[in-house]
Amino acid sequence: MDYRTLFSYSTSMESDFLTWLTHKLQLQTMTQSGIGDDCATMQFDSNCTPLITTDALVDLVHFDLRVHTLEQIGWKSLAVNLSDLAAMGAKPKYAVISLVVPDTFQLHELQRLYEGILDLASQTDTLIIGGDFNTHSGPLTISATAIGQTVSSQTKYRFTSQPGDRICITGPLGKSILGHHLNFMPCLVEGAILASSKQVHALTDVTDGLVIDLHSILPGDLGAVLYANSIPCREPSGDAASDLKHALYDGEDFELLFTVESATDIRDLTIAFPRAIYEIGLVDKSNQISLQRGNQDREILSVTGYEH
Amino acid sequence: MDYRTLFSYSTSMESDFLTWLTHKLQLQTMTQSGIGDDCATMQFDSNCTPLITTDALVDLVHFDLRVHTLEQIGWKSLAVNLSDLAAMGAKPKYAVISLVVPDTFQLHELQRLYEGILDLASQTDTLIIGGDFNTHSGPLTISATAIGQTVSSQTKYRFTSQPGDRICITGPLGKSILGHHLNFMPCLVEGAILASSKQVHALTDVTDGLVIDLHSILPGDLGAVLYANSIPCREPSGDAASDLKHALYDGEDFELLFTVESATDIRDLTIAFPRAIYEIGLVDKSNQISLQRGNQDREILSVTGYEH
Repeated sequence: MDYRTLFSYSTSMESDFLTWLTHKLQLQTMTQSGIGDDCATMQFDSNCTPLITTDALVDLVHFDLRVHTLEQIGWKSLAVNLSDLAAMGAKPKYAVISLVVPDTFQLHELQRLYEGILDLASQTDTLIIGGDFNTHSGPLTISATAIGQTVSSQTKYRFTSQPGDRICITGPLGKSILGHHLNFMPCLVEGAILASSKQVHALTDVTDGLVIDLHSILPGDLGAVLYANSIPCREPSGDAASDLKHALYDGEDFELLFTVESATDIRDLTIAFPRAIYEIGLVDKSNQISLQRGNQDREILSVTGYEH
Repeated sequence: MDYRTLFSYSTSMESDFLTWLTHKLQLQTMTQSGIGDDCATMQFDSNCTPLITTDALVDLVHFDLRVHTLEQIGWKSLAVNLSDLAAMGAKPKYAVISLVVPDTFQLHELQRLYEGILDLASQTDTLIIGGDFNTHSGPLTISATAIGQTVSSQTKYRFTSQPGDRICITGPLGKSILGHHLNFMPCLVEGAILASSKQVHALTDVTDGLVIDLHSILPGDLGAVLYANSIPCREPSGDAASDLKHALYDGEDFELLFTVESATDIRDLTIAFPRAIYEIGLVDKSNQISLQRGNQDREILSVTGYEH
């Protein structure tokens, strides 16, 4: 923990950064937990299950320092983790952040990166309680770990969809690379609502692409059909076939993908959702994922065909 | 979480690695928690405080791939985090591991890295319950987050030493760079014993160097004197002055540094320790850290003079 590094301690930039950060985090949290000791302490409600998730972002893999702002990159580094909590129907409590920054980084750049992290943290009641800081000659790498707890005694898993379930998504898909992946708000409100309903059988977030992530919530012997005309496409170009391909395979949408039992009143279930809801398919026993375009024959979709 | 990456999913190496890892982790944990869903679930004992710590290791900063084995590097990546838990008197429960590996890495290299992690995990009852995996063109970066809980209702903090406290260390210091930093066993047993004693006022592990870490356990108005002849030096060269300098400033010793109230029977307190115990100084009200060499005048030590 420590926010101190054996091989680079006592550089003035690091010292200035930690002074600034400690002040910011104290303002943010007003608790005793947090940086300055070897570990940070945590508390969970007794009837809730604690959950953890971690994701690392690397320059030129998940973002591009030449194009994206540091605030956006900081925001995204926490957002991708909170999306994983939303995908279990959990709410965030804490996060720890490991930064490995290029040794050319300046104090104001570190501050801007952290402003993006803290902006999302404060909007989602996530306390930043620790981290690690290093400099090196390689690319900016941000590894965030988020810890949350279920909103009730229920946890939503992936591999629990059932034949006949209707498949829903919380927003448009595809072309996230144009900007959405940098400024999305994790679906925490929607995840908490879905988690409290027994009619919701399976839940995940779309990170690798709709087809692959749908595959991940189908038990081994189940399949699904997707309705081509019902899938919402982000930034439609007018070329419907191209838009649909992006929606099926692009990934980094961070919308919630879930299945509900067939008799569910979806409108009633999602009435408190801040965002739209789209019913896009049906779980079946076909052992494959296919696409239904209007009245045409179904087209079997490749699960392994994903490439970026 | 996921162990899947948007921009590099479905490479055969990653797929083979995840198949291998899932099998290894199932063998290790035999629990339902763990990889394969968006988050991993955790459980804590009701009378214990959950704790978290994170540290990232980077090639050519914390290890050198050209010299050190992958098993050593994997071991160290978890060990530095477990040492932080030991420094709070906590025992480990879980860890998550984010790997960012060079895109030239082979499957057998990933496996060897993980064998080092799992070797220490199994020796310390730490369950690896998730992680993240990415490839890039930069250096190997391992970010580990460890979660533990206090062994009792007590948590040991840093800034709680008191005037008159005796200062102790669990092992020799200095020259860790010669090998100790790669294969040390975190002082979990010692930490748990110390945590259960009210006579122990402050506790940390030596990561940045004895002088700096001692400074970190002294409240603002306190100081300390160190007894030069009592400080145990690792791999002594015969040049006592040089050995002592290494012991004072090198860092990455991962021994526990603690203070006990003056009337403590240290032998009795540490009778169950697997390793030796050394009394090396005294907390005082001097507001500085000084070194006592035999009968000579005290020499004031620079806290900021650390360089590697």
